[in-house]
Formats: sequence, structure tokens, C-alpha cells
Amino acid sequence: MVINMSELPIAPIGRIIKNAGGLRVGEDSEEALRQMLEQYGDDISRQALLLAKHAGRVTVKASDIELAVKEIE
Amino acid sequence: MVINMSELPIAPIGRIIKNAGGLRVGEDSEEALRQMLEQYGDDISRQALLLAKHAGRVTVKASDIELAVKEIE
Repeated sequence: MVINMSELPIAPIGRIIKNAGGLRVGEDSEEALRQMLEQYGDDISRQALLLAKHAGRVTVKASDIELAVKEIE
Repeated sequence: MVINMSELPIAPIGRIIKNAGGLRVGEDSEEALRQMLEQYGDDISRQALLLAKHAGRVTVKASDIELAVKEIE
């Protein structure tokens, strides 16, 4: 599912790119990475919710996130 | 490579989980998702840097990020 909710602020995204190696960070690259990370976060979260419900819980736990990452890889 | 730089703020991470379906968001789940997204962002960024250098540029562009995502999937 494609989303465009822009929850993540742009400045830390730029730092993640900058930290990776020191090249200049184009503004469009920050927006591109933000969209990728929000999409990935949404995919993980949806799977984690299914896992939490499956376990009979109403709270998403770290173990749900961790298993969800393995499942969607 | 495992990183723990905590560039991303925790509140938007919690909203990504919350937006995915409305269950309660455990605090440890926010931290787990933050680590996953930062790791994924770092992996993408490192590959994007290689691609930018390969193209003879000193600036990371959106097209580098987009190709990097395809390559590391």
C-alpha cells in the first residue's frame, strides 16, 4: 500500500544520509528516503498488528515488530 | 552493520505504528521500530552513496536512493 503521511521529520533523514558517507545530500534524496522509510515502517507496523492480535494482545510490543521484520523480508 | 545513532525522534515512530491499525503502542515497540528504520535507512544510504560516486557526482540524489532500495531488496 502506498502512503504519503510524512510523519518523519526531514532533518534527521538528511543526517542518516550524511552519516553514511559524507557526500552532499540533495533535497530530493531526503524526501525519497523519507517516503521509503515511512512505507517500510507502515509495512512492518501492519504485520506487527496482526501478530499482536494473533497473540491475543491489544498492545503492540517490540517482539511483534521484530518478528514482523523477519516475516516481510 | 549494526548502528544505534537514534537520529529519528520517537513520537513520529509511535504514530506510524498507531496509524497502522489502532492498537495500543508499547514503548518498547517504538524503540524497536526506530532501530529497524535507522538500520534500513543507513543500508539504503550507503548503497546510494556508492551509486552517486559511480555516477561521478558528489551529491546524493533521489534517483540514487530509489535505485539503492531496489538493489538491497
